[in-house]
Amino acid sequence: MPDVSVYYFPIKGLGESIRLLLAYGGQEFEDVRIPKEIWPQRRSIAAFGQVPVLEIDGKRYAQSVAISRYLGRKYGLTGANIEEDFLIDQNVDFVNEIRLAASTVQNEPDPAVKAVKRAKFLRDKCPFYLQKLDEIIRSNNGHLAAGKLTWGDIYFAGLYSYLRYALEIPDLDQKYPSFKKLQDYVLSLPQLKQYLANAPQTDF
Amino acid sequence: MPDVSVYYFPIKGLGESIRLLLAYGGQEFEDVRIPKEIWPQRRSIAAFGQVPVLEIDGKRYAQSVAISRYLGRKYGLTGANIEEDFLIDQNVDFVNEIRLAASTVQNEPDPAVKAVKRAKFLRDKCPFYLQKLDEIIRSNNGHLAAGKLTWGDIYFAGLYSYLRYALEIPDLDQKYPSFKKLQDYVLSLPQLKQYLANAPQTDF
Ligand SMILES: N[C@@H](CCC(=O)N[C@@H](CS)C(=O)NCC(=O)O)C(=O)O
Ligand SMILES: N[C@@H](CCC(=O)N[C@@H](CS)C(=O)NCC(=O)O)C(=O)O
Repeated sequence: MPDVSVYYFPIKGLGESIRLLLAYGGQEFEDVRIPKEIWPQRRSIAAFGQVPVLEIDGKRYAQSVAISRYLGRKYGLTGANIEEDFLIDQNVDFVNEIRLAASTVQNEPDPAVKAVKRAKFLRDKCPFYLQKLDEIIRSNNGHLAAGKLTWGDIYFAGLYSYLRYALEIPDLDQKYPSFKKLQDYVLSLPQLKQYLANAPQTDF
Repeated sequence: MPDVSVYYFPIKGLGESIRLLLAYGGQEFEDVRIPKEIWPQRRSIAAFGQVPVLEIDGKRYAQSVAISRYLGRKYGLTGANIEEDFLIDQNVDFVNEIRLAASTVQNEPDPAVKAVKRAKFLRDKCPFYLQKLDEIIRSNNGHLAAGKLTWGDIYFAGLYSYLRYALEIPDLDQKYPSFKKLQDYVLSLPQLKQYLANAPQTDF
């Protein structure tokens, strides 16, 4: 079995989807969780200056979505044809677009500027984003695309806790039950049981 | 031949890669360039509220990177295996990350805030981004990945004029000749000749 490590911070964030995909594939890996304080010293592991980084037998892989697709193909979690693969890619990019928009607001350091940005986000973008995502999942039989389990579902399940945190909408699970239901479905897959039982507990 | 349209604004922006890929594939298409002024009335064509949108026989496709990968697979412009496909995906995501960072700075409406953001971007991010991208292209024999022509090259060539505009670095072509050289290489492919001769001229 290849020698695999995942380098990321001690949160789920953009790293959890990769951890879940490896667990799904039965691939053991070193789950390297770098404390933020020592990140400047460890940054050199990252070819693009950022984590997550996946390492397989000394070879490094960057970009969380690209890595997730790669592992999905490795473990047979793709669509049946290029049409279905497109739909997975499109919907994953959409989820990631929502995540990026939410975290741009959340990470604004100036409280006054943040309040303005947040009001604008909640008015102009957020309702559309979330209704659309809900519609996608419901019309795909509870999945992100292609009406069946694909790497897109595992990508979503890994990212959802962080997405909810970044959106700062406390009752998101209640408002859009399809999101949490998809995450729960993935996290109850038997292949993930051992990883989830042993992984450090973090909120997002 | 299927009935194909590309909906986008009257610029290259995120739409040009899709137009170039269709041209490469010998696929005729209606090049629908929507003036910004009438965008609010046309927005309903976009499932995710944004363009570019590709339409094939009435079916709509969104997300520029996902569409580019899909067309790349259709026209035989992928890597030879999942490793090479990963590298294309990773490097395309990196290019898109640079584009997003640059346009976030460029689109800041408050001139004072923009000046601060821009100084920070030019100091902390931009040199790393551009040196890294240059290194990637040079180590791939002038290509974005896999050492050969793939959809990643066409994606890059379509986006580069907009990327240069968003970066607001007038001598970018001189500083990093590998960028312009890759774009020129793609734009001189014989398959693109007819499209390029007839397309409206825009700077970015
Ligand atoms: N596009 C990249 C983004 C990665 C990213 O934003 N990483 C952040 C943590 S979530 C990071 O490494 N931050 C530390 C830094 O930039 O120094 C991906 O999807 O992997
Ligand atoms: N992630 C999307 C982003 C698309 C996007 O940002 N589109 C912009 C133009 S470049 C747009 O439609 N703006 C008009 C609007 O948001 O109303 C993609 O890659 O296709």
